[in-house]
Amino acid sequence: MQFTSDQRLDDGVRERAFILGEIPGILWTPESAPAPAPAPLILLGHPPLGLRKMYPRLVGRARDAAAEGFATATIELPGSGDRPRWPATEQARADLRRVMEAGEPVTDEIVDALVLPLVDKAVPEWQAALDALLSLPEIGGPVGYSGGVISIGVRLASVEPRVSAAVLFAGSLVPRAVVEEARRLTLPLHVLLQWDDEGNDRQAALDLFDAFGSKEKTLHANMGGHAGVPQFAGDAANQFFARHLK
Amino acid sequence: MQFTSDQRLDDGVRERAFILGEIPGILWTPESAPAPAPAPLILLGHPPLGLRKMYPRLVGRARDAAAEGFATATIELPGSGDRPRWPATEQARADLRRVMEAGEPVTDEIVDALVLPLVDKAVPEWQAALDALLSLPEIGGPVGYSGGVISIGVRLASVEPRVSAAVLFAGSLVPRAVVEEARRLTLPLHVLLQWDDEGNDRQAALDLFDAFGSKEKTLHANMGGHAGVPQFAGDAANQFFARHLK
Repeated sequence: MQFTSDQRLDDGVRERAFILGEIPGILWTPESAPAPAPAPLILLGHPPLGLRKMYPRLVGRARDAAAEGFATATIELPGSGDRPRWPATEQARADLRRVMEAGEPVTDEIVDALVLPLVDKAVPEWQAALDALLSLPEIGGPVGYSGGVISIGVRLASVEPRVSAAVLFAGSLVPRAVVEEARRLTLPLHVLLQWDDEGNDRQAALDLFDAFGSKEKTLHANMGGHAGVPQFAGDAANQFFARHLK
Repeated sequence: MQFTSDQRLDDGVRERAFILGEIPGILWTPESAPAPAPAPLILLGHPPLGLRKMYPRLVGRARDAAAEGFATATIELPGSGDRPRWPATEQARADLRRVMEAGEPVTDEIVDALVLPLVDKAVPEWQAALDALLSLPEIGGPVGYSGGVISIGVRLASVEPRVSAAVLFAGSLVPRAVVEEARRLTLPLHVLLQWDDEGNDRQAALDLFDAFGSKEKTLHANMGGHAGVPQFAGDAANQFFARHLK
C-alpha cells in the first residue's frame, strides 16, 4: 500500500489516498484525540459508480465516523472509476436494464451474472486492503463493514472473521448463493432499508432481512428513495458500530 | 388531578402517583437540572394489563426518558388494574382467545369489538390527563406519545394536536377504521416492530407501517418476541423524541 496524497480536512480528519497494487483507495483517520490509540476501522462500501463520483457521500460518512473515533477506508470496485472496464459486468448491466425497461421479470440468471463475478473479485480485494490497513499503527481492531453492494457485505462478513459487525444497505438483486451465505451469518447486523427504493423490491429486501442468521439484527426502514437515507439513520448506524466496535 | 404520593427514586427522578377523577396515574419528572425549565412530556402507553403489573417496565422507560430531560406520565386503562371490570371487552378478549386457540381467522368483527370500545373510552381520558398535566408549572410542551396499544396511539395522534411526535409499538389487531385514521396522520412517527412477536402478524404490522400518512416515519425492527425490545431500541426511541420534542 502506497500513499499518494495526505491532507487534513477542515474538521481535523486526516485523508490519505493510496494505491494497493492496481487498486486506488482512501483512508480517513480521526485526528482530534490528544494521544490517539489505534482506532477501530470501518470499511466503507459503495455502489459501483466510481470513487470520484461517490466521494462527497463517502467523505460525509468518514467525517461522521471520525467524530465517533473511527477510522474509515474504501477501495475502488473492479471495473469502476479509473480501473479498467470489465466487459462481462457491463454486458450483465445492459441485460438488466433491458429487462427492467421491458417490464420483464429479473431472472435469477441475470442477477447471478450481474453480481457474482463482482463479489468473487471484490471480496479478496477488500481482504487485501484489510491486511494492509491493519498493519498501520494508527489502525486497530475491531473492524466493521458498512453499506454498498449488499452481496459484497454478506460475502465479506461470511469469509472474513476480522469483520465483527456490519451495516448493510438492503437490496433485492441478491444471488441465491449469497442468500444462503446470509442464512449462516452470526455477526451483529444493522440493515438500512429505504421504503420507496426505486431500484429494489421491498418484499425481497424484507425476505433477505428475515433470512439473516444473526441473532442480533435490526432493520431501520426510512421513507424515501435509494439515495434519501436521512442523517439520523446514519447517526444510528454509527451508534450501532459504537456498541459493537468499542 | 390529586397527587396521592410523592417520592424521589434513587437516580433523582421524582415519582408522583395521582388520581384524575376515578383514574389512577403516575407522573415522573427529572430532578437533576439545577433550575429546571418546564420539561417536554411523553405519555407512556402500555397494554391493558394493569399499571401495577406494568410498573417495572414503565419506571424503566420513565428513568431513561428523565435522563434525556423528559417528564413522563401514564394512566390506567379502562377495565384494567384497580379500575372496575368492563364485561364487554372481557367478552371480546375471550372471543379472541377462543378463535386463536382454535386456529381460526381473527375476523374484522372480533378486532373491532375488542379494540374500538377501548380506544373510544381511553383516548378522551388521555386527553383529560394531558389537560391536567400541562397545567403543572414543571411540565411544558411539546408532547409525545409512546408505546402501548397502537390503536390508542393512532387515535390520540389523530384527534389531539398537542401530540407532536409518537413512538408506536407495531401491532396487527388494528380495526379498519383506525387504519383509515393512520392514513391521515402527518406527525413524525417511530415504529418499533418485534420481528417474531408471538401476538402480532408481521405482514399486517408492515402493512400498517406502509399505511401511515406521515412523511417522516421510521420502522425499527428487532429480533425477539413481544416483550423482548432491546435496550438500544429504547435508546433510539428517546433520540427520536430528542429530535422532535426539544
